[in-house]
Amino acid sequence: MKVIGILGSPHKNGGTAQLLISALKGAEREGAKTELLSLYDGEVKPCLGCVQDEEPTCKFPCIFEDYGKVILEKIYEADGIVLATPVYWFAPSGPMKNLIDRMTALENMVVFGEPSYLEGKVVGAIAVGADDGGAFATGYLITVLTSMGAIIPPWGIAYSHKGDKAIFDDKGLMDAINIGLLIARMIKRLKGETVDLTYQYEPKLRDAIRQEVISELGLIQDVSKLHPKKVLMLDKS
Amino acid sequence: MKVIGILGSPHKNGGTAQLLISALKGAEREGAKTELLSLYDGEVKPCLGCVQDEEPTCKFPCIFEDYGKVILEKIYEADGIVLATPVYWFAPSGPMKNLIDRMTALENMVVFGEPSYLEGKVVGAIAVGADDGGAFATGYLITVLTSMGAIIPPWGIAYSHKGDKAIFDDKGLMDAINIGLLIARMIKRLKGETVDLTYQYEPKLRDAIRQEVISELGLIQDVSKLHPKKVLMLDKS
Amino acid sequence: MKVIGILGSPHKNGGTAQLLISALKGAEREGAKTELLSLYDGEVKPCLGCVQDEEPTCKFPCIFEDYGKVILEKIYEADGIVLATPVYWFAPSGPMKNLIDRMTALENMVVFGEPSYLEGKVVGAIAVGADDGGAFATGYLITVLTSMGAIIPPWGIAYSHKGDKAIFDDKGLMDAINIGLLIARMIKRLKGETVDLTYQYEPKLRDAIRQEVISELGLIQDVSKLHPKKVLMLDKS
Amino acid sequence: MKVIGILGSPHKNGGTAQLLISALKGAEREGAKTELLSLYDGEVKPCLGCVQDEEPTCKFPCIFEDYGKVILEKIYEADGIVLATPVYWFAPSGPMKNLIDRMTALENMVVFGEPSYLEGKVVGAIAVGADDGGAFATGYLITVLTSMGAIIPPWGIAYSHKGDKAIFDDKGLMDAINIGLLIARMIKRLKGETVDLTYQYEPKLRDAIRQEVISELGLIQDVSKLHPKKVLMLDKS
Repeated sequence: MKVIGILGSPHKNGGTAQLLISALKGAEREGAKTELLSLYDGEVKPCLGCVQDEEPTCKFPCIFEDYGKVILEKIYEADGIVLATPVYWFAPSGPMKNLIDRMTALENMVVFGEPSYLEGKVVGAIAVGADDGGAFATGYLITVLTSMGAIIPPWGIAYSHKGDKAIFDDKGLMDAINIGLLIARMIKRLKGETVDLTYQYEPKLRDAIRQEVISELGLIQDVSKLHPKKVLMLDKS
Repeated sequence: MKVIGILGSPHKNGGTAQLLISALKGAEREGAKTELLSLYDGEVKPCLGCVQDEEPTCKFPCIFEDYGKVILEKIYEADGIVLATPVYWFAPSGPMKNLIDRMTALENMVVFGEPSYLEGKVVGAIAVGADDGGAFATGYLITVLTSMGAIIPPWGIAYSHKGDKAIFDDKGLMDAINIGLLIARMIKRLKGETVDLTYQYEPKLRDAIRQEVISELGLIQDVSKLHPKKVLMLDKS
Repeated sequence: MKVIGILGSPHKNGGTAQLLISALKGAEREGAKTELLSLYDGEVKPCLGCVQDEEPTCKFPCIFEDYGKVILEKIYEADGIVLATPVYWFAPSGPMKNLIDRMTALENMVVFGEPSYLEGKVVGAIAVGADDGGAFATGYLITVLTSMGAIIPPWGIAYSHKGDKAIFDDKGLMDAINIGLLIARMIKRLKGETVDLTYQYEPKLRDAIRQEVISELGLIQDVSKLHPKKVLMLDKS
Repeated sequence: MKVIGILGSPHKNGGTAQLLISALKGAEREGAKTELLSLYDGEVKPCLGCVQDEEPTCKFPCIFEDYGKVILEKIYEADGIVLATPVYWFAPSGPMKNLIDRMTALENMVVFGEPSYLEGKVVGAIAVGADDGGAFATGYLITVLTSMGAIIPPWGIAYSHKGDKAIFDDKGLMDAINIGLLIARMIKRLKGETVDLTYQYEPKLRDAIRQEVISELGLIQDVSKLHPKKVLMLDKS
């Protein structure tokens, strides 16, 4: 079982990354192999709209030999996907939108008599900003993904308004972890395993994952800036 | 296995009804018991926003003894739900929005230590208009439903711009039928049955369901108005 | 110059009302006569979709003799309108959506050779919730209104996540006041007056309007609950 | 009076370009100087989210020396702007989203004690696709723009489902032309001129602009493919 996380933010230890990593840790708790891919690690060229050509030309893995192709291939191989984006003007970032546009090459296989290459994959979405828009941004992403044939698990979207302090947003963090847990469980369930598909409200798991993320992202030295009251708790743990 | 369809349109044989009935027929092909409920058959009082009260009071089945309560109870009992709305100004109709607001009573059970009463139900959405907005309207509905804990199956939204001729929109109709098929199959799959979750492109099934809907809704006498070229085909069938 | 505010919330002293009244006070500072209409004061029957009838029948003031008609007539007479809604599931409330649907009767006059009765009116939108969704809800409202012919002034949307404490949301409150100010100034400017159309960042005006709203809504006795640190400031003023 | 059009499509004679050029021709009829800028003519690098830095660094004209900077400077100088995008998955294209993200540098001047550099500019949006999503895509664009301080004129959005045949979509074309006319008229009106701000339903103007666009884009030889019934009419003109 492979679950990938796609980071649409330029900040590798920012709030979006924090919740995405948390989601992937949730998936790992359920036995998934995970991988995080950052859209800012290479170029995702803009879609050229070949889908409108008279003769069908838009097909996986797209005409471009760029980093976008690498991502599309990772998506193709994954059982589950977490799309995580910063909220830029109430919506996914430009690079995330470029990826969505390029994912047409996966979906458009239907024109060639194959199923959509997204069909049956389990997908959730995360968005983090300092202002409103997370529901809109994530709602948009899952709307596209169901239109490409993906399955959205229960509680398939998570968002936070806490910006680079998202890891301290108890609700946003618990929601993000559940995206990972529930993507992995849904994949198992679809394979016939008897696992529960209920939201896991587990403060201990949440706090444990929080500590791991803080530590791995090297946030610990900055924690006093992030959320003073939590420092003692963190030092103690 | 029970799948209900909720009609948010005042027109019982209009385009929204046409595609909703088609979806339910798809679910029936997979063995589901179905029921269609029309929001215009009674009053769905507007939500009073009790969810913001200091003491938790918003709980199933809501404080109102109205038709909305009947609908909420039907939702509670269903395994799968198809929400079907006309597109009024790019969005679900007012009565559909009133129902969404009232469904808070199902979701808010989490405050009382229970799971959301929508959790694990399989939900798709249909929208029909004469203009743009179907993707927005259905995308909105599934965004809310995943936020209430529902599962969105592959290809969970369908829409048509054909207004009261939606039954003749080949793509919109095939998509709507797939919503029914895939909701039912997803329910089976979650129960451990080995069924496929791929989009069913089956023109024969589509045409058969189209004929049934036309006949049941008494559209046959108006077919010449609806789509002249189809008349012969219909007369022959 | 007449500017009306339409309240889509059941709570007459809740956060939505607080920011709406603040916006109207902004408009009054610019000389507007204002009036607040609450959608929960009567019944706004759901639209019957007559706009799809073969013969054109959907026209102002709609076929219903209900409270919705009263509101539509007030809209017809106004130069400026503030639509204010609670955020229910990321979107306007059901009654606000029912009103939008009914406003078709104003816009559909184009079918009868008249301009849309919304054309040229200046409109802004406010949304208040305890969670995300304000940008989506207000963005939706102005999208519909521009499609009906209304003008959206600079900074035409405002929202707050502070729920019934929205009056203490400095940014949300300043934005709401600006909606009132800028609607009124836009109306003047369109009439040829030389007034500025820039965002007014005026903390003194904001605090003065806040005090007025708190006092008028009888929130003062509850202020300690609302925002303890503000109590002294309020007592002093 | 300067009105610029920004093309977010890779196709310079596709449907989006057709309606954008039509809008600019509308603005020219009202005396505007116009310029069309294509986002695919250069690189618009993705926003790095500097707006979240502790010290304010996000400011016009952004840190990048790329084609995006050229566009931002053109926007800065314009009185009116038409944003035109293809509909890719119900939303603006990736390059258009990258531009929106980069426009933060214009808006964020408020942090430096200046007004938003978008404030008071008059903006409309156009979207063209072969499927649903135009209302969502354009609604999104104007929601962002009002949040940056722009003014949305009456009838500020236009869309078509006709793809590369959008120039033959009578309603979409008339709407697009009105965006140009009404942006220009709004600019005049704000300057004190007495001009009308009503939707111009003028089939003759529409057909004249259509012919110009077809001719300029070299579509004439393909017209028989595009819309057979129009050929004679076109040959005659």
